[in-house]
Amino acid sequence: MSLLVVGSVAFDAIESPHGKVERTLGGAATYFAVAASFFTRVNLVGIVGEDFSDRDAAVFRGRKIDTDGLERTPGKTFFWAGRYSQDLNDRVTLATELNVFANFNPRLPEKYRSSKYIFLANIDPKLQRSVLHQVNGRPRLVALDTMNYWIERTPADLRETLRHANVLMINDSETRQLSSQHNLLRPARQLFHPGPKTLIIKRGEHGAMMVHRDGVFCVPAFPLEEPHDPTGAGDSFAGGFMGYLAGCGSAKDAALRRAMVYGSVMGSFAVERFGLDRLRHLTRREINQRARLFERLTRFTL
Amino acid sequence: MSLLVVGSVAFDAIESPHGKVERTLGGAATYFAVAASFFTRVNLVGIVGEDFSDRDAAVFRGRKIDTDGLERTPGKTFFWAGRYSQDLNDRVTLATELNVFANFNPRLPEKYRSSKYIFLANIDPKLQRSVLHQVNGRPRLVALDTMNYWIERTPADLRETLRHANVLMINDSETRQLSSQHNLLRPARQLFHPGPKTLIIKRGEHGAMMVHRDGVFCVPAFPLEEPHDPTGAGDSFAGGFMGYLAGCGSAKDAALRRAMVYGSVMGSFAVERFGLDRLRHLTRREINQRARLFERLTRFTL
Repeated sequence: MSLLVVGSVAFDAIESPHGKVERTLGGAATYFAVAASFFTRVNLVGIVGEDFSDRDAAVFRGRKIDTDGLERTPGKTFFWAGRYSQDLNDRVTLATELNVFANFNPRLPEKYRSSKYIFLANIDPKLQRSVLHQVNGRPRLVALDTMNYWIERTPADLRETLRHANVLMINDSETRQLSSQHNLLRPARQLFHPGPKTLIIKRGEHGAMMVHRDGVFCVPAFPLEEPHDPTGAGDSFAGGFMGYLAGCGSAKDAALRRAMVYGSVMGSFAVERFGLDRLRHLTRREINQRARLFERLTRFTL
Repeated sequence: MSLLVVGSVAFDAIESPHGKVERTLGGAATYFAVAASFFTRVNLVGIVGEDFSDRDAAVFRGRKIDTDGLERTPGKTFFWAGRYSQDLNDRVTLATELNVFANFNPRLPEKYRSSKYIFLANIDPKLQRSVLHQVNGRPRLVALDTMNYWIERTPADLRETLRHANVLMINDSETRQLSSQHNLLRPARQLFHPGPKTLIIKRGEHGAMMVHRDGVFCVPAFPLEEPHDPTGAGDSFAGGFMGYLAGCGSAKDAALRRAMVYGSVMGSFAVERFGLDRLRHLTRREINQRARLFERLTRFTL
């Protein structure tokens, strides 16, 4: 089924102990769309500047990604620069130049309005809500990401947006911040009334955890000897997760669990190389192989 | 099969955000023995002082724990005091009084010398080796724990002891320290030549990871809403792990995986209450129930 993503398309400058890139295509919606396109058709809504060339757009071509919703406007594309520490868990932001992204006002092309699976990447909760207002009928599943900035600055807006979401995908520090609790399990209960029914906590090298009414599901991160660049890992996870669900047209527990695994698979590939390098050259066969390795990684019999 | 544990028996004073105990029985060998005794017979070697009363020893009675190897000697029992932070991951040691433990020189009663499964809790690597010299014949499985103190102060001794171990069970920071690498996967390869063939990394609230030649197995920590006291969680994990293996008499991959789950089960119970309170009142039925919850927590089908 149709999957819509709304979020940033950006250029990133990245330093990690494994190297450095000056300018590589990134942004939440980019990672998400490329990851999800292995599973289903993706409708992309974002904004770029005049510096976004046909060569940059090439990453979307030949994939099941519709870019009619990618607005090109005078000015420069969102630029982010960051440096990762030795353990890749901490990063320092060296530059954030919003540029055209500062005026992002997502408009859905008519053909996107019937999208049934929707991912609202980390943007102003008001804009996330404006996207939902443009959707016709009732979507099957709305998932959203957010960040400390919105949790701190616009908590009421975020709460309101959460009322319309089925799945909230955030990392552990955001979970703690949102709930003012250290424990990761209790926040879910707070969120469930009247917010999303499913909380997915992305824990980086510690994997991911899904909490919903009926229970908890954990998936480890894929053990890698040399992860290069964690940028986009969470959005690639989201892409694998939502792409799988939209592809199979289900949101039942068994499907959600599989989606967690495919999300983890896509996140694990994303970090293997800088930027989108690994996802660009990935095959569906490699995805399936790694999913089976996740089985091997977690399977036991009592 | 017979399981031998050599390590500390102590009194602990513990503060956590959930409460405080002034003096409760603890020590690595104590947690290990109680946890393992649900699965197999345990031979305990340790040392206590004159302040160790019959009431203290009651924790071992009525269990499959042989305490003939628990030496009672003039002086006071090892005492440790610590305080946990809000997130229970960090702790400050407020007092370490080795007392009689400073002169611990493990002696195995004759009937212990044929033990086939051996756990050497965190003590001087030289003493760990002296235990192995007292064992008759070839043990089936030797596992050991260690800590930053020995990694820093007696690295050569530790390396020598590791040559005689099949399984090394340490936490993630110790793994990084031992290998001078942040990555948790690569250290295993260093250790495997000529050291233990299996590395088990205890990651607290992030679960545990087993690395051996053939691959990696991950088990999450059991999600708890109100963990009270992490003291002894790692030793309870080790007790469940080794107890299960000794009980089933196998050390094949499938058994090792199950042992990781039973270890996690015992660790999860240990943290639910202060000191040994939860393990003392635990039933085998509860253990089996929780093991099935671990299945539910991790199971997916592709």
